[in-house]
Amino acid sequence: MRKIAESTVRRLSLYLRFLEEFEEQGATTVSSEALASRGGTTSAQVRKDLSFFGSFGKRGLGYQVPALKTRLRDILGLDRRYRVIVIGAGKIGSALVQYGGFRARGFDLVAIYDNDPKKIGREWNGLQVRNVTELERDLARAPADIAAVVTPADAAQGVADRLVTCGITAILNFAPVQLSVPEAVTVKTVNLVLELEALSYVLANR
Amino acid sequence: MRKIAESTVRRLSLYLRFLEEFEEQGATTVSSEALASRGGTTSAQVRKDLSFFGSFGKRGLGYQVPALKTRLRDILGLDRRYRVIVIGAGKIGSALVQYGGFRARGFDLVAIYDNDPKKIGREWNGLQVRNVTELERDLARAPADIAAVVTPADAAQGVADRLVTCGITAILNFAPVQLSVPEAVTVKTVNLVLELEALSYVLANR
Repeated sequence: MRKIAESTVRRLSLYLRFLEEFEEQGATTVSSEALASRGGTTSAQVRKDLSFFGSFGKRGLGYQVPALKTRLRDILGLDRRYRVIVIGAGKIGSALVQYGGFRARGFDLVAIYDNDPKKIGREWNGLQVRNVTELERDLARAPADIAAVVTPADAAQGVADRLVTCGITAILNFAPVQLSVPEAVTVKTVNLVLELEALSYVLANR
Repeated sequence: MRKIAESTVRRLSLYLRFLEEFEEQGATTVSSEALASRGGTTSAQVRKDLSFFGSFGKRGLGYQVPALKTRLRDILGLDRRYRVIVIGAGKIGSALVQYGGFRARGFDLVAIYDNDPKKIGREWNGLQVRNVTELERDLARAPADIAAVVTPADAAQGVADRLVTCGITAILNFAPVQLSVPEAVTVKTVNLVLELEALSYVLANR
């Protein structure tokens, strides 16, 4: 795997977003300065980030928007679609399957699970909440690429273990716990309390 | 402001979480090894992170749980409560004000705003959605510490500008845009598409 810092990958995602905006506005070329000012970074940083993957730009001419867009989509693995399952049909889980923005970016939410009989069978966007006991059978039949864990804290590790056993190697974790997984599995954690505490830290130490 | 890397602040938040768990289980001391294994890091990293703030541990005896907890809460600015407002009463905004976990950690959600007449007046957890035109007047009367921006992409920058004018210096941004704010304002962005793309990047480059 090419070794790129997580922060670089994040900026590449943002550049891709900005390129799409520039394209919508009819631009065919864009300067590193324009990308930088849109992304709150420096043009030197933009050039450094992009030079990592070969030369895209011409001095004085800027980057070709469509070519750079294609290249970034390729680097980020967005030249294909991903099957995403959601475990946990609470408020956040149901918000995830109702949000149209993921499909537009290549992430298809294909199933949602819960263990609560009151939630099983509910339907959002044509997706019916399935009993989590079906998880293994479903994944054996139709594997998924990414699983979002949106369970309460005490259920998350057990669910993660089951997902790993089923061959899932990419997890987006919303439960307020640190998941322990084998090295070959990547976990990205979305923890809003941690984000709030990062802000309280800044407020307290100004 | 003490200069600590964002990743360190994040680990301190996690250590605090683990200390609370250890305390619930009746532990009065904890080793750097135990904190490390719980947090998926090394004991050397734990010792390095904590030594930053003075000496807490005794070789062979480990850390005093209550003392270290108090110190971490102090460092993270959690020895006081924070007033948080939410702009945008869509699915995520309403999930935020309904989630009890923030209050338990010192973050009081005190108001939620929207500009949609169909949403204004709705009530969750005793909080009624207010018209966003009231924002400036409300903040002049009762300032807030943190604002969560949960609006559509095209409204987010305008809302951020208004918040900054009202003196808000800490923003948690859920809108899928990069907010441009003065240097004195801190923005933490929660962008689920970026998280998914970080996973697709890993899946594509394995």
